[in-house]
Amino acid sequence: MNRILLSVLFLFVLLVAGDGRHERLIDHLFKRAQEKHQAYDLLRELTTQFPHRLAGSPGADGAVRWAEETMRKLGFDKVYLQAVKVPHWVRGEQESCYLVSGGAGRQPLSVLALGRSVATPPEGLTAPLYVVNDVDDIKQAAAEDVRGKIVFFNAAFPDTFLQTMHGYGAAVKKRVYGPSEAAKKGAVAVVIRSVTTARDDFAHTGTLVYAADAPQIPAAALGFQSADRLYKAWQADPSVRLFLKINSRVFPDKMSYNVIGELTGSKHPQKIIAVGGHLDAWDVGQGAHDDGAGIVHSIMAVALLKQAGYRPVNTLRVVCFMNEENGLRGGKEYAAIAEKEHQQHIVAIETDAGGFTPRGFGISGSGSQLQRMKDWLSYFPAFTIREIRDGGGGADIGPLHKAMGTPVISLIPDSQRYFDFHHSRRDVFEAVNRRELELGTASLSTLIYLIDSQGF
Amino acid sequence: MNRILLSVLFLFVLLVAGDGRHERLIDHLFKRAQEKHQAYDLLRELTTQFPHRLAGSPGADGAVRWAEETMRKLGFDKVYLQAVKVPHWVRGEQESCYLVSGGAGRQPLSVLALGRSVATPPEGLTAPLYVVNDVDDIKQAAAEDVRGKIVFFNAAFPDTFLQTMHGYGAAVKKRVYGPSEAAKKGAVAVVIRSVTTARDDFAHTGTLVYAADAPQIPAAALGFQSADRLYKAWQADPSVRLFLKINSRVFPDKMSYNVIGELTGSKHPQKIIAVGGHLDAWDVGQGAHDDGAGIVHSIMAVALLKQAGYRPVNTLRVVCFMNEENGLRGGKEYAAIAEKEHQQHIVAIETDAGGFTPRGFGISGSGSQLQRMKDWLSYFPAFTIREIRDGGGGADIGPLHKAMGTPVISLIPDSQRYFDFHHSRRDVFEAVNRRELELGTASLSTLIYLIDSQGF
Repeated sequence: MNRILLSVLFLFVLLVAGDGRHERLIDHLFKRAQEKHQAYDLLRELTTQFPHRLAGSPGADGAVRWAEETMRKLGFDKVYLQAVKVPHWVRGEQESCYLVSGGAGRQPLSVLALGRSVATPPEGLTAPLYVVNDVDDIKQAAAEDVRGKIVFFNAAFPDTFLQTMHGYGAAVKKRVYGPSEAAKKGAVAVVIRSVTTARDDFAHTGTLVYAADAPQIPAAALGFQSADRLYKAWQADPSVRLFLKINSRVFPDKMSYNVIGELTGSKHPQKIIAVGGHLDAWDVGQGAHDDGAGIVHSIMAVALLKQAGYRPVNTLRVVCFMNEENGLRGGKEYAAIAEKEHQQHIVAIETDAGGFTPRGFGISGSGSQLQRMKDWLSYFPAFTIREIRDGGGGADIGPLHKAMGTPVISLIPDSQRYFDFHHSRRDVFEAVNRRELELGTASLSTLIYLIDSQGF
Repeated sequence: MNRILLSVLFLFVLLVAGDGRHERLIDHLFKRAQEKHQAYDLLRELTTQFPHRLAGSPGADGAVRWAEETMRKLGFDKVYLQAVKVPHWVRGEQESCYLVSGGAGRQPLSVLALGRSVATPPEGLTAPLYVVNDVDDIKQAAAEDVRGKIVFFNAAFPDTFLQTMHGYGAAVKKRVYGPSEAAKKGAVAVVIRSVTTARDDFAHTGTLVYAADAPQIPAAALGFQSADRLYKAWQADPSVRLFLKINSRVFPDKMSYNVIGELTGSKHPQKIIAVGGHLDAWDVGQGAHDDGAGIVHSIMAVALLKQAGYRPVNTLRVVCFMNEENGLRGGKEYAAIAEKEHQQHIVAIETDAGGFTPRGFGISGSGSQLQRMKDWLSYFPAFTIREIRDGGGGADIGPLHKAMGTPVISLIPDSQRYFDFHHSRRDVFEAVNRRELELGTASLSTLIYLIDSQGF
C-alpha cells in the first residue's frame, strides 16, 4: 500500500471511529449493566423458579418456556424453539453411602451419583475397597485384586494449575472414564473424590461415559472431606467395607428444545453472530454459575444493545442450548441444522465458565481475527477484559466449529472459584456476585458490538 | 548511550537473566503458594483466634502476639515491636434502632454504631427524621427544619464505577463527615445507609470524624434493606419517628504495637523493601478481607522467598500496622521513626484491598519506576497481575511517602466483592477464597523478588 492510500485510510478511520461513538456506547453498556443489573435479576428468576434443569426434567421444560418468554418480553425480533431429542436420566431420591465398620457402626459419607450412572441393587451393595489415585493406576492393577471391590479414585484436583480450567481436563478423567476402567478389572462399583477445588463436604456430580466393552457399574462422587475420611479409614483398616446405594433410572429419550432469540440484521440478516450458554443444569443446586450465568449473559448481552437503540448490521442470535451436561444433543442438533440450511455464521460465542469477573476471551479462528481481538482490547474498561488467548470455543459450539469451520470464541471469567460450586448443591444464586456477573454481560455485549459494527 | 555500550549491556542482561532463573523462581512461588496455602492457613488462625481486633481491644493485643510469634516460627531474622499509643473506643453491647410507629409497634432495623460515635443517652433517643441523600444536601438544609431530628443519609453506593474502590471515596463522605454536618444544623443523631455494594441487611460500620466546630452526636449505619424500609416508612408517613440507642464508650489511649519482621539484606542490610497491611480490624466479623488478608499476604510473601532459599540483597521487612481503622497511629508512628532514624526505604508496598484475585499494582514513584513495573508485567503468570497504574500507596504507608518521599505501591485485587464484606459481620474467614488469596501472596512475593534482585 502506498503512502497516500495509507493516509486516506487513516483519515477515513478517524472520521468513522474517531468521534468516540464506540467508546460512548461501550461506556453506556457497562454502566447500564451495573445500574439495571437485568441479567442478575433474570438469573434470580431462572435459578429459583427452575433450579433443577437436567435434560428431560420438568425443570428443563420450565426453563425452555422461561427463556422463550423472557426473550419475547425483551422484544427480540424472532424467538423460536429448535426441537432436540434428549436423554432422560433421573437420580433416585435414596442415594446413600457409608463406611461399614464393626465397632463404630455406620459412618455416613456425603455422596452424589454420577450422571448416567446405573443403579445399584435396590437394597444397595457392600464391598471392600480397592484404592487408587487415578485412572492410569487402575489400568495397571491386577484384575484379581480388584474383582468384587468398590474402586475408590482418590486423586484431588491439582492445585498447581493457576487457572483451574487447565486442571479440570486432567482431574475429570477419573469421573468420566474411571467407572468403565474399573469395571474392566471386575469392580462392582466406583466412588471418586469429587472433582473440586473446595475443601468442604459437598459432593460434585457430573457425567460419566460408559465404554462399550465394559459392564456398566454404579458410580458416585464423595465430598472432599468424606473422601478424606474414607481414605483414612482404609489406611487404618484395608478390609474396611463401603455401602453404596444408587437408585437412578433411565427413561426413553424425550423431546426438548434449544431456545433461540434474534435481533434481525439491518444490512445482512442472513449473517449471524451467535452467543450462547446452556439452559440445562445438574439436578442439584440451582445451576447458577453452570450455566444460568451464561444464559442470562447471552440474553442480556444482545438485549442491552437493543435497549441502547443499536441497530445491528448482522443478525444477533442468542442460543440457549439444551443438554450440554449429559449428551450435548442441543449443540449437535444446532450444528446439524446450521449445516443443512447453509446458515452463515460470522462467529459463535460461548459463555459457560461461570458468572465471575471477566478476564479475557479465547478464540479459535484465523490469525487476523485473533489480531483483531487483540487490537480491540483497549476498548474494554480497566480491570475487565485484558487477555486474548489463541484457542477458544466451548462444548455447545464445538460441533458447529467442526462442521462448518465457524470461528468460535469463549468468554474467560476469573476461574478461581468455579470448581468450588460446579455440579454441586453450592451452585446457587447466592454464589453469584451481582457486579461480577454484570461485568460479563457488558463485556460480551461489547464484543458483539465490535464484531458487528467493525467486521470480523 | 552508544550502540556498542548498548550491545554489551544487552549481552549482560542475557547472561544474567536469560537463563530463566527469574521465571523458574516465580513459577515456584506461585505453585508453592497454591499447594501449601500457608497464607490461607495463617488467615484461619488469625481470624478465628482473634476475630475482633479494634485498636485497644484484647483481640488486637492477641493479634500482636500472634503476628510476632508467627514470624518467629517462620524464621525471620529479626522480629520486633514498635510501640504505638492508640485510641480505645468500645462499642456497647446494647445497640438498637427501630421505627416507632403507632399501629405496627416496633420495627427493628439492622444497625451498627459508627466507629468513634458517642453514645446516646442510656435510655436511647427518639426523634422524627430529616431525610437527605448525601452530605451536600444537609449543607443546603435550613437549620429550623433539621433541629431536633435524626438525619438519615440515604445515598447508596454508586453502581456506575466499574471499580468499586473508585466509588468508595464519594460514598464514604456521608459516613465520615455526615454526622458533624448534620450536627451543625441541630440534628440530634445520624443514621446512614451502609456504605456497601451488597443488597443484604448487614450493617457496615467504619470511622466517622467529628469536626471541631460541631457538637458530637451519635451516628450509626443501617443495613441496605433496613435503609430501604426506613425510607419507605418515611415516604408513607414523614412524621415517623426513629429510636436509636448506642452505648459506646471511649477509654484513655492505650499502648499497642506495630509488629515488624525482617529478612536481613545480604548486600545492603540498611536498604529496606517494606510490605504490610494492618493488624487491627473492626469489632464485628473477623476482619478477614480487611485486612487479615493483607497481613498474611505480607508475612507469606516474604516467607515464601526465604523458603525458596532466596537470599535477599536488601532487607525485606514485613510491617503489621496497628490502628489503621480508627486513627492511623501505627502508620504515622512508623513514618516518624523511619524519618528520625534516617531509614532508607527503597519502596513500601501495601495490601489492604482484600484477598481477591490480584489484578494489578498501583505505584506513586518516579516515571522510570512506573515503566520498570510495566516492563515486569510479563513475569506474572496469565490471569494474575495485568495492569500497572500510575498512582498507588495506601493509608498506612501514606505518612512515610509524605515524610520521606518513599515510592509506594498498592496491590490491586479484583474489587467487585470487597464492599459486600467490608466493615461488616460478613467479613469472615469463609468469605476468603483460598486460591484467590494465594495468588495475591505469590504476586506480592514476585514483585518483592523483582525489586530486590533487579533493582528499583
